[in-house]
Amino acid sequence: MRAEILSIGTELLLGQIVDTNANYLAQQLPALGVDLYYVSQIGDNLQRLSAAFKQALDRSDLIITSGGLGPTEDDLTREAIADVFQEHLEVQPHLEAELRGFFQRRGRTMPERNVKQASLIPSANYLPNPVGTAPGWWVERDGKIIASMPGVPHEMHKMWEEQVQPRLARLITGGVIVSRTLKLVGIGESHAEEAVGDLTRSTNPTLATYAKSDGIHLRLTAKAATQQEADRLLDEFEPRVRNRVDEWLYGTETDSFSAVVGAILRERNLKLAVAESATGGQLATLITEAPGASDYFVAGYVAYSAEAKRALGVSEQVLEEHGTVPQQTTRALAAAARTAAGADVAVATTGNAGPDAAENKPVGTLHMVVDIRGRQVCQDTQYSTTRTEYKRRGALEALYLLWRELKRTNV
Amino acid sequence: MRAEILSIGTELLLGQIVDTNANYLAQQLPALGVDLYYVSQIGDNLQRLSAAFKQALDRSDLIITSGGLGPTEDDLTREAIADVFQEHLEVQPHLEAELRGFFQRRGRTMPERNVKQASLIPSANYLPNPVGTAPGWWVERDGKIIASMPGVPHEMHKMWEEQVQPRLARLITGGVIVSRTLKLVGIGESHAEEAVGDLTRSTNPTLATYAKSDGIHLRLTAKAATQQEADRLLDEFEPRVRNRVDEWLYGTETDSFSAVVGAILRERNLKLAVAESATGGQLATLITEAPGASDYFVAGYVAYSAEAKRALGVSEQVLEEHGTVPQQTTRALAAAARTAAGADVAVATTGNAGPDAAENKPVGTLHMVVDIRGRQVCQDTQYSTTRTEYKRRGALEALYLLWRELKRTNV
Repeated sequence: MRAEILSIGTELLLGQIVDTNANYLAQQLPALGVDLYYVSQIGDNLQRLSAAFKQALDRSDLIITSGGLGPTEDDLTREAIADVFQEHLEVQPHLEAELRGFFQRRGRTMPERNVKQASLIPSANYLPNPVGTAPGWWVERDGKIIASMPGVPHEMHKMWEEQVQPRLARLITGGVIVSRTLKLVGIGESHAEEAVGDLTRSTNPTLATYAKSDGIHLRLTAKAATQQEADRLLDEFEPRVRNRVDEWLYGTETDSFSAVVGAILRERNLKLAVAESATGGQLATLITEAPGASDYFVAGYVAYSAEAKRALGVSEQVLEEHGTVPQQTTRALAAAARTAAGADVAVATTGNAGPDAAENKPVGTLHMVVDIRGRQVCQDTQYSTTRTEYKRRGALEALYLLWRELKRTNV
Repeated sequence: MRAEILSIGTELLLGQIVDTNANYLAQQLPALGVDLYYVSQIGDNLQRLSAAFKQALDRSDLIITSGGLGPTEDDLTREAIADVFQEHLEVQPHLEAELRGFFQRRGRTMPERNVKQASLIPSANYLPNPVGTAPGWWVERDGKIIASMPGVPHEMHKMWEEQVQPRLARLITGGVIVSRTLKLVGIGESHAEEAVGDLTRSTNPTLATYAKSDGIHLRLTAKAATQQEADRLLDEFEPRVRNRVDEWLYGTETDSFSAVVGAILRERNLKLAVAESATGGQLATLITEAPGASDYFVAGYVAYSAEAKRALGVSEQVLEEHGTVPQQTTRALAAAARTAAGADVAVATTGNAGPDAAENKPVGTLHMVVDIRGRQVCQDTQYSTTRTEYKRRGALEALYLLWRELKRTNV
């Protein structure tokens, strides 16, 4: 099956927003066994929109659109589909009642212009939108499918997951297609691929890797006649994958790494402090991404200057030797942070985020120390990247080191 | 003039990367007076690429492409253009020599497959790429223009600015089109538009506003016969714009806000400390984005718990009253940070980043205090957004408050 994506909205052509919807959908299609050949961004213009649908119907079997389903005169996706199929748009009383209910539940009166969102053509089925006013459309005619969803990303994602993806799976395979995601940290994409090895050649379930800002994601996808059968296939496959990547595996689906580390600290009743030189606050920022971090994260120090390191409790002698024994300073910083904050666990970073070399520290060097009740573990690394990216990756790696040590020990 | 953008590369259709190139180019075209009607992403397939060029030549005057100029067999932009114009690709000895020189200067031998990057068709001119191996193409034929640039964003931006934009400006206006950017912070987009008022109706230079992650950008664009004349128009217009937004204006072009604030601190020899509760390290992260921040940024404290605030020097009484007098705690925190770090200036944040209400603090509340040698200024705000976005916007606003006070005083 050949698919085509149309992202609709003049704001895309003015460069006011980046089209992340097309990217999201492009990532979803391989699991369905659908080939994506064309992606286009089109403005809010009926003639050009109709022409785009006409062309897409000529060359593709499945057209997925986002945007243009709002209540204003500029929202023309419905009109363009009606035009290209020569069908008549009509307001559906039961949909209008539903739409009025959506506003009523929010204590508001529906503006009259929103009525057009309750219209359909005979070939269109309505896709409910529980989180917004723009319902989607599912159109089947002449062996072609059009799935139209709203442009607001979180509304589109929900409609895709709950409505469009299951319908497509049923249509394409006569059954269901179910995915699970495993998330890894502390490992690069090519090493992750090596680690899973021959499992990437499995055909059902399949296994795909994606590099994301919070680590590597492994997506396991099963095709089956029923949800139950797909779950059984995944229940069998998942442990084999987990077995290969256990060392780096921190969670699934919507898990966030900082919340995973936080949950361990909370459960063991361990208090955490950090002392950052090189990562400049990014490690504290990462840790406080987790809601409720105040349960375990007692204090963060950004000790950029020698004075600040001294004030925290790092000895004069260590500071003087800093240029030659950077690891020593990092150790002292971790110990000082733990003591000053009255914490059980501390993480410290030193190094040089660049862009210039300083104090004999080459650009890109990062020293990390994890201190768990006085037992210290060190790790060094070297990045060739921008200052911002150095801080982001460094913070993630330092938090990975803490997580690894927490798993290793029974503190 | 009708323009069309083609972003070329199968990785776009697999969802491996987001097409930020099309967004960049879409933002550049209005200043040239060019209308952008179509944007498409196409895979590395000769037949589909040729068809895309054929269609674009039918319906547009100007086709701007990025991607597909690399040395591998998958890079087919040159081949597709040759195909659609029925012209013959030939390796140009002087371009080949230049390409070999690029590798030589980096101490490497050019792989033989890279030779194809030195080929042209008779209608194509070569656009030099000083930062990569993929030269661009400028093709004029039958009244149509094709400008092809590499897909790597920083290579594409440079080639656009130095080669493609000036050629297009000359072609469209017979002269030059020159833009300047003014950057604002501490003001929203609609307020910025109000502030510049009638100046947005100016036709030459024009004035456009963009909301970005580091504030609001105002883009001033002049069309003229020569660079000198454009500069003169801008020199006349810019002070009138500055005059309206002076209060929020922190810089131009590539200035970063944290570096601008840092420069003031460095120049006045002021040492800075921050104490963050609500922003959880994000303010320190923002400050340390500036290279050389260690010159003035002496210490950051992330005081999440009452214990950490107490350790920093906030009194028991203030902490007990925290629920009822949050402003009081923030003041005490700023004073304590300044004293503990031996700094001249301190910024403190408290509040609730969410997602849950806590200690009578509603979600989204942010209290900020700037302390300059004991003289304190307070500001409160309220956000309705995610935890991550609360921290990002809160840090920017707190730094804005510091900057405003530094400008206001002669410390």
